[in-house]
Amino acid sequence: MKPLFGGIEGGGTKFVCAVGTGPDDIRAETRFPTTRPEETMERAIDFFKQQEKELGGLSAIGFACFGPLNPDPVSPTYGHILPTPKPGWANADVAGALRSAFGLPISFDTDVNGAALAEGRWGAAQGCDPVLYLTIGTGIGGGALVNGQLLHGLLHPEMGHISLPHEIARDPFPGTCPFHGDCFEGLACGLALEKRWGARAETFGPDHPAWDLEAHYIALALASYIYTLSPQRIVLGGGVPQQPHLMALIRQKTQALINGYVQSAQILTNIASYIVPPGLGGRAGVLGAIAMAEQAFLMDSKTP
Amino acid sequence: MKPLFGGIEGGGTKFVCAVGTGPDDIRAETRFPTTRPEETMERAIDFFKQQEKELGGLSAIGFACFGPLNPDPVSPTYGHILPTPKPGWANADVAGALRSAFGLPISFDTDVNGAALAEGRWGAAQGCDPVLYLTIGTGIGGGALVNGQLLHGLLHPEMGHISLPHEIARDPFPGTCPFHGDCFEGLACGLALEKRWGARAETFGPDHPAWDLEAHYIALALASYIYTLSPQRIVLGGGVPQQPHLMALIRQKTQALINGYVQSAQILTNIASYIVPPGLGGRAGVLGAIAMAEQAFLMDSKTP
Repeated sequence: MKPLFGGIEGGGTKFVCAVGTGPDDIRAETRFPTTRPEETMERAIDFFKQQEKELGGLSAIGFACFGPLNPDPVSPTYGHILPTPKPGWANADVAGALRSAFGLPISFDTDVNGAALAEGRWGAAQGCDPVLYLTIGTGIGGGALVNGQLLHGLLHPEMGHISLPHEIARDPFPGTCPFHGDCFEGLACGLALEKRWGARAETFGPDHPAWDLEAHYIALALASYIYTLSPQRIVLGGGVPQQPHLMALIRQKTQALINGYVQSAQILTNIASYIVPPGLGGRAGVLGAIAMAEQAFLMDSKTP
Repeated sequence: MKPLFGGIEGGGTKFVCAVGTGPDDIRAETRFPTTRPEETMERAIDFFKQQEKELGGLSAIGFACFGPLNPDPVSPTYGHILPTPKPGWANADVAGALRSAFGLPISFDTDVNGAALAEGRWGAAQGCDPVLYLTIGTGIGGGALVNGQLLHGLLHPEMGHISLPHEIARDPFPGTCPFHGDCFEGLACGLALEKRWGARAETFGPDHPAWDLEAHYIALALASYIYTLSPQRIVLGGGVPQQPHLMALIRQKTQALINGYVQSAQILTNIASYIVPPGLGGRAGVLGAIAMAEQAFLMDSKTP
């Protein structure tokens, strides 16, 4: 019998839980607002318990969650949310709640790492390794699949916070990051767009000067990730890159910045198939959690 | 019988070849100048053939080489040097020469990836994953061990070429990178130090203003790698970081730039054991090649 998986996409405002085996086989799904951690985790656990009665036992559960969090299975605070301004969630042992309730293999990682795994497994980056998944929305975050597993170590990537050359003359806006001011997120997230230009990005026409500057900062960041991670494909999720014209501008500027230095056909001639929108659209989050469960199940099956 | 490995550290000016199993067991070693690829590879092959007669058969060979190169085993140009200004080496099938001569598992990767593996296996980053190895000498290069294997994908990392905020007011020097001008390498490599200040860095006293600026650029780059790769340890090789006082300044500035954002004890309190000099010193190159051979042997033994 094909193993069945549970997946939780834990977001700051809502949780999505699903049971299935992949994008063409989601057998049950629910969503509810993110309240306090005990209550929220209880609703997730109740959902899976109910589904186990109806659909049969789960083989593993994946939990792709907002951060910062501790994804290191050998750490004493594995599975906890780390100090966060989100009321009640700091130090909550969210994965522990799942483990106690089910006694199943649990995979716990960031939402963007989950999305990277899902895009590699079923989406726009199938067969690629490393896969880089970057989301540019209200904030900016990145996850990656590297050598078959999700990327974390010290903690987990916080890719939005790299420093970039700030085009001060053309762009005196100081940036929105409370920690770093004009880091990549501070200069280029949705909030920065809104604060810099005094209006929401959805209202800008295609000739608005915001786009050229936005594409420039995104391209600087992508070049930095390419030099550091050497990804075989970059998936750009979140609301901002889905704006018309922006994707083409990002590709062109990334190519220009690298200036022939990386002698790969993907950069030199095939950049339109290298920097791509998500293949799973808004489903990458919950499917990422399902893919994480699948991976935890396969790892667990291999352990003697 | 314990398997015996061959390792080649292929540098732009010299090749080092060794036979052994690790840092405490190097049974033979030779070095010779890097001339034309056919001649250079022939000398390496002759050395290993001779050692096989004297010491017994090798189980695998690792080749940690200057780049750019193609480390992707499924690519038709796997094992080749890529277009390079170095006369005669562009498109040379250097790993192919080894494969034809020995019929053994061959591991072919960048010198800095080899050094990352060796530092993780026997040096200053034992038990860590990811391991980031950065060398700051005439140029700047980085390699990494991630999820148990070396990091490459699109091609291989070119970590020296990330963009950083250039402190133009304090530092009008335009940078030395022929491709990107003031990228990290362009601002902070040994050549940049020499050109900016009109003298070689070894001649600067400890109060020379070069060091504060140099530590600032290196710290910006390290913060960027930390956000992108989440390494469990960073090993700083090459001549520049070995200058007195510089390592302490780099640690202090990296911590200040991250500004508490990464809630890890390694950053917040233990940074002196997080950003470290190589444990293997100048031996990381050839030991990296031996470690690569060991990994190729283990992978090959697992393949049915």
